[in-house]
Amino acid sequence: MVDQSAQKWLESAKNWAFQAGEIIRNGRSNGQFQHDYKLGHELVTSVDLAVDRFLCEQIQTVFPEHLIFSEESSPDLTLALNSGVPVWVIDPIDGTVNFAQGLLHVAVSIAVYYQGYRIVGVVHAPFLEETYHAVRGGGAWLNDQPISVSKRSELRNAVVATGFPYQRDSLPELIQCVAAVLGQCQDIRRNGSAALDLCAVACGQMDAYYESVKPWDMAAGALIAEEAGAVVGSFGGQRAQWPTALNGDNLLVSTPKLFTPLEALLVEAKGLPSQT
Amino acid sequence: MVDQSAQKWLESAKNWAFQAGEIIRNGRSNGQFQHDYKLGHELVTSVDLAVDRFLCEQIQTVFPEHLIFSEESSPDLTLALNSGVPVWVIDPIDGTVNFAQGLLHVAVSIAVYYQGYRIVGVVHAPFLEETYHAVRGGGAWLNDQPISVSKRSELRNAVVATGFPYQRDSLPELIQCVAAVLGQCQDIRRNGSAALDLCAVACGQMDAYYESVKPWDMAAGALIAEEAGAVVGSFGGQRAQWPTALNGDNLLVSTPKLFTPLEALLVEAKGLPSQT
Repeated sequence: MVDQSAQKWLESAKNWAFQAGEIIRNGRSNGQFQHDYKLGHELVTSVDLAVDRFLCEQIQTVFPEHLIFSEESSPDLTLALNSGVPVWVIDPIDGTVNFAQGLLHVAVSIAVYYQGYRIVGVVHAPFLEETYHAVRGGGAWLNDQPISVSKRSELRNAVVATGFPYQRDSLPELIQCVAAVLGQCQDIRRNGSAALDLCAVACGQMDAYYESVKPWDMAAGALIAEEAGAVVGSFGGQRAQWPTALNGDNLLVSTPKLFTPLEALLVEAKGLPSQT
Repeated sequence: MVDQSAQKWLESAKNWAFQAGEIIRNGRSNGQFQHDYKLGHELVTSVDLAVDRFLCEQIQTVFPEHLIFSEESSPDLTLALNSGVPVWVIDPIDGTVNFAQGLLHVAVSIAVYYQGYRIVGVVHAPFLEETYHAVRGGGAWLNDQPISVSKRSELRNAVVATGFPYQRDSLPELIQCVAAVLGQCQDIRRNGSAALDLCAVACGQMDAYYESVKPWDMAAGALIAEEAGAVVGSFGGQRAQWPTALNGDNLLVSTPKLFTPLEALLVEAKGLPSQT
């Protein structure tokens, strides 16, 4: 029953992600979008809001009994992940700063969670023409071709993606982690879209990714990475209030062999108590 | 005379860059390339070497009297920039790690220097289908459309690209700069190709870029950024032995209004004596 529903959710999510991608593309080519700053530091544009409205309307029309958890319209919703009602977790534009700058790493992220599990994930990057998707137990896909994580096993050859939160009150910790990773790994990449960083791990372009992110940033990408063979976990514990499957606090995602050494490296760098 | 020659050099450079892009694309789709590490830490693949051979052969055939300064084949050449002989400065693959990982930020960089000046610059990114070019005094172009830097004037809204050298002996300084930029600017991006970072400043996708790079990394991109209205300079002095126009030591490139505040920020972060 869930399998059949999941396929239906996937098809809807992909369809809406493509349409959302068109809104984003048109927003850029018009160049008329407005900027605003949430909480004084986090950029949001009129295109983020338009995509959010579009996605919420579609979900409410086709699945009126489902819940929606969205970055732009319902960030305070208390998730009823165990309520038996599917929850759509959406980020209308992941990479809003990139969108405003004219950069390419911009994505729509749409996920469905059900009974505490990641069931469906779609990440669509309109400017890169890349669409990643996964259904729980069904593998991970890029433009309908199967993908998997890299075989990387040693830190010194690993290329590691990361990001920096808008709020910089944890700057010293962030910097210690960057220094540790630069000292031990091949290199760092910072593309500005968490959803696409997770997908980059899924398809082997990156060997690992770490950052503290919000549920909507990682909801779809975490399933895609997981289904591609990545270990999806955390380093140094999770202080945020979200359910585990949606908790992006100290998120660490990597090839199976890199997870433990990277976890140890980051825990030490942050000066956190070890998990072992 | 130089103008007419410059046009001829530009046409050759673009033509060869497209052909080099094909070699790079084929190299990735074959997936058969070999990896090696120069000096134990710097990745080079058989595709880098194949593109280098291709470009050197073309230049030597069409312009036998010119000099070539290339990352892969002649890094020890003492540049005769004031000798009256045009010098081709080439990087067959800028972003070799990205190439090997399957990432998109990969470029061929071809420049011509003459009598100490930047005359022609071509940066071609085969996976992004972006070709940037500039001729001294003739503006900067992306896929034959004119480009210019952003109007950004304040650090707090600036998106700043940077990179990290393969050799990590200057890690503490690097980290201090990252901390300073993250503390004062909107965000950092790290794409893994210096040539494309320079072009991103040129077309306004990034507001600034800083890094210490080699001449072949910045030879073409510096002219493209300059012709797009960027200030191309350095922060904290230049310790390397290259002529000024090809000196990528402490390279800083930004919109006109961001240069002075960024220079001050980075000089202070590195703990270097101020330039003022």
